[in-house]
Amino acid sequence: MARQLIRIMRPDDANVAGNVHGGTILKMIEEAGAIISTRHCNSQAGGSRGSGSEPCVAALARVERTDFLSPVCIGEVANVSAEITYTSRHSVEVQVNVMSENILTGAKKVTNKATLWYVPLSLKNVNKVLEVPPIQYARKEQEDEGKKRYEEQKLDRLETKQRNGDVIFPVINPEPHTVGYSQSSLIHLVGPSDCTLLGFVHGGVTMKLMDEVAGIVAARHCKTNIVTASVDAINFHEKIKKGSVITISGRMTFTSNKSMEIEVFVDADPFVDEPRERYRAVSAFFTYVSLSKEGKPLPVPQLLTETEDEKRRFEEGKGRYLQTKAKRQAQMQQAVQQ
Amino acid sequence: MARQLIRIMRPDDANVAGNVHGGTILKMIEEAGAIISTRHCNSQAGGSRGSGSEPCVAALARVERTDFLSPVCIGEVANVSAEITYTSRHSVEVQVNVMSENILTGAKKVTNKATLWYVPLSLKNVNKVLEVPPIQYARKEQEDEGKKRYEEQKLDRLETKQRNGDVIFPVINPEPHTVGYSQSSLIHLVGPSDCTLLGFVHGGVTMKLMDEVAGIVAARHCKTNIVTASVDAINFHEKIKKGSVITISGRMTFTSNKSMEIEVFVDADPFVDEPRERYRAVSAFFTYVSLSKEGKPLPVPQLLTETEDEKRRFEEGKGRYLQTKAKRQAQMQQAVQQ
Amino acid sequence: MARQLIRIMRPDDANVAGNVHGGTILKMIEEAGAIISTRHCNSQAGGSRGSGSEPCVAALARVERTDFLSPVCIGEVANVSAEITYTSRHSVEVQVNVMSENILTGAKKVTNKATLWYVPLSLKNVNKVLEVPPIQYARKEQEDEGKKRYEEQKLDRLETKQRNGDVIFPVINPEPHTVGYSQSSLIHLVGPSDCTLLGFVHGGVTMKLMDEVAGIVAARHCKTNIVTASVDAINFHEKIKKGSVITISGRMTFTSNKSMEIEVFVDADPFVDEPRERYRAVSAFFTYVSLSKEGKPLPVPQLLTETEDEKRRFEEGKGRYLQTKAKRQAQMQQAVQQ
Repeated sequence: MARQLIRIMRPDDANVAGNVHGGTILKMIEEAGAIISTRHCNSQAGGSRGSGSEPCVAALARVERTDFLSPVCIGEVANVSAEITYTSRHSVEVQVNVMSENILTGAKKVTNKATLWYVPLSLKNVNKVLEVPPIQYARKEQEDEGKKRYEEQKLDRLETKQRNGDVIFPVINPEPHTVGYSQSSLIHLVGPSDCTLLGFVHGGVTMKLMDEVAGIVAARHCKTNIVTASVDAINFHEKIKKGSVITISGRMTFTSNKSMEIEVFVDADPFVDEPRERYRAVSAFFTYVSLSKEGKPLPVPQLLTETEDEKRRFEEGKGRYLQTKAKRQAQMQQAVQQ
Repeated sequence: MARQLIRIMRPDDANVAGNVHGGTILKMIEEAGAIISTRHCNSQAGGSRGSGSEPCVAALARVERTDFLSPVCIGEVANVSAEITYTSRHSVEVQVNVMSENILTGAKKVTNKATLWYVPLSLKNVNKVLEVPPIQYARKEQEDEGKKRYEEQKLDRLETKQRNGDVIFPVINPEPHTVGYSQSSLIHLVGPSDCTLLGFVHGGVTMKLMDEVAGIVAARHCKTNIVTASVDAINFHEKIKKGSVITISGRMTFTSNKSMEIEVFVDADPFVDEPRERYRAVSAFFTYVSLSKEGKPLPVPQLLTETEDEKRRFEEGKGRYLQTKAKRQAQMQQAVQQ
Repeated sequence: MARQLIRIMRPDDANVAGNVHGGTILKMIEEAGAIISTRHCNSQAGGSRGSGSEPCVAALARVERTDFLSPVCIGEVANVSAEITYTSRHSVEVQVNVMSENILTGAKKVTNKATLWYVPLSLKNVNKVLEVPPIQYARKEQEDEGKKRYEEQKLDRLETKQRNGDVIFPVINPEPHTVGYSQSSLIHLVGPSDCTLLGFVHGGVTMKLMDEVAGIVAARHCKTNIVTASVDAINFHEKIKKGSVITISGRMTFTSNKSMEIEVFVDADPFVDEPRERYRAVSAFFTYVSLSKEGKPLPVPQLLTETEDEKRRFEEGKGRYLQTKAKRQAQMQQAVQQ
């Protein structure tokens, strides 16, 4: 059952050029995913929970790589629809599509196709992962393809470099276009409206803050109007509790002719009510482009790398860039041949 | 004792043409009403609660038909003042007036006169309705007139068609100006900032979301700048709990030459912590007009009805429209004669 | 350890002329202060809490006089950094600096230097003030100067006139430029997102509302674009609990050629769950200036005082104005001589 979330884009959702922040869209995507998967995990045949099952809230475990296909503007309506496409024993795959609609002209554009994975956590014991009711597939192949995606993401989660030791230090008097020049960091106190019923931060709230930092890094580097072009797969390894302080840090890792890759870390300090050290909760790569007034991508200044680490990260970023480019070309070729 | 709520209207409160959303105003009206009635129900002679009484929160039970007399703009100050005008044993009638003020020119305009009914619910047991301390009337007639209004609204509440079976289904490739073309639906996850101390959604939050959906329906139909003209009486039969998902759906029911009537439903899914099915929490009719740049009402395209149900609803809408028109003419005649 | 909070200024943060409200800045300053001092009070040597200590939340006790050195605009990034500069046995002094940054040109301006005092309250018992872990000073003089500031603010807190009996009454048909003409008052229902983990209003939320009322008073008086120029020291004598209704009232007390002083009161009604009367929680003086389109201060109409009380308050305001002016001239002379 698809469900839809619609909202008019407001001035606060957008930058000064009127382009809606990628983070606003990511937050809506995650909210739609959380609603449909929580609903599903609390339902049994017929829609009402059986006496034997426990109430739960679905927590975001992973978002697959997401492209921002076209910019959304203030005054447009974002239509976000979600559908469950696969269930494993303990996780739910949700496909979320976003379409922007100019309600005056009626023009519609697909802006995002995102895939999210949720895990149901017991409302009584947040550390207990519950079982997911299986969905019905129209065709057997759908189940097989879903299982394949499930195995792939599981592998990717394991492979994710933890980079837990990696920290961003301030640089004194950095040169323009160096890594130190644009790196940025912000802190946020986790309040009640950031959290689910379980008292943990919504994945969408985290992603919105990550996009905010990445956007500041990108603007500081190229000093022009910038928009989110894509986000790499994000794994949510660790929950963040209400009352925590989170530090979100971003640094540029790579530039191509017309794009910038920014690595973003989220560190949590559960400083009040738990005897626990600061920990790395999430990390991700955001890609930004700079847009002219006519909406065309502009060239961006090349990133100047100084240290060995910066050079290594630049090469790794280049690898990701070329890999994505090759994948996209293969898809386009496939599309042409079909 | 009158109390006042004032706030400068911000860009996020308004549409792209700079007109403040009716929903923003409705939310302020309800907040003022909730404050004054909760205060009253917790007071005894002298202002402090006696030892025998229980603390309570006033919950919105009903809003009488409300007209939006003139548009409010960004940068203006909305002055919302509330006064208790009648108390029955278990309910409070509050009169709320809204005035917009251009603080630069000093110009003021009355924009709304709303009547709301609240019921005090015990803070310890939300299902227990407490007794309301009686107010003093300056004249005996005020009490009699209040009692008459109380009886009328009680009757109207009973007569409200529940329409609980009525659901809005998506239409594939609808023609412009049909009901299916403009109908819209959104979902919202009820968070802590939406709720009262009792953990139930503020009536004003619900009305703001209803106005948002109705506005999208109106804009999709006529593709011009639209504003809320009036809201019919709304009865809040059912509470909505924190953590619920609410689905707000709107469809056009009637158009006159220069106005559109939109029916809005609110359905709640208490999906996490209660073994209860989806239920209809509220429904209401919103009337919208389309405004030119000079603020004059524009003609709107006629609604094309297709099914028998749509034709029946159109005729019912026409009935409401003509009744309201007749009432207004009678009032104006009365005013002229006085 | 300095910590930084950064945020892009949004349309809702600013007035119609695009100048960010002083209240938005004060709220960010307080959030940064609350984070660093709560973190400090929960830390022991090495960063993790010892088994003997209790978790706590730092509550704002006082903000020293704060000047707004230059206006901030929509689209600029506010950089807020905080540092602990002194600790007494039961309080923490935090120095917060705000810098606005145009991320497109890279231009930066210092906009505020604020000093705040926090007190750690036990998470288990909000009435228990805990001990503050001492900080290390680079030089002995830093500790001595901090101690001097600590003693001075303690004295000032004691001397603060409570003005608890003082209430603002509405005036019927006031003349332009009188006190009654511009005085304003608003009410606010304290919701969960206004509160700390302890369930009491964040000091920054209160200051933002105070600035909102003061701004309305200033605009009503001079009917031009106005901005916050400074805030006198504010003492937070009394906590305000979630579910309270607060009334924020402002009246003009003094005008110089180019500035307006507005006194703001915050009164709390803990009306639901406590058998307590309305009480004065905070009061403060805000100074506003009127700006031309080029950002130059404009002359303001003189305040017309009518009653004896108004004349007395005008003279007191004049005293504060002259004292501040003299202090600033002394500082400038000192700066020139160095």
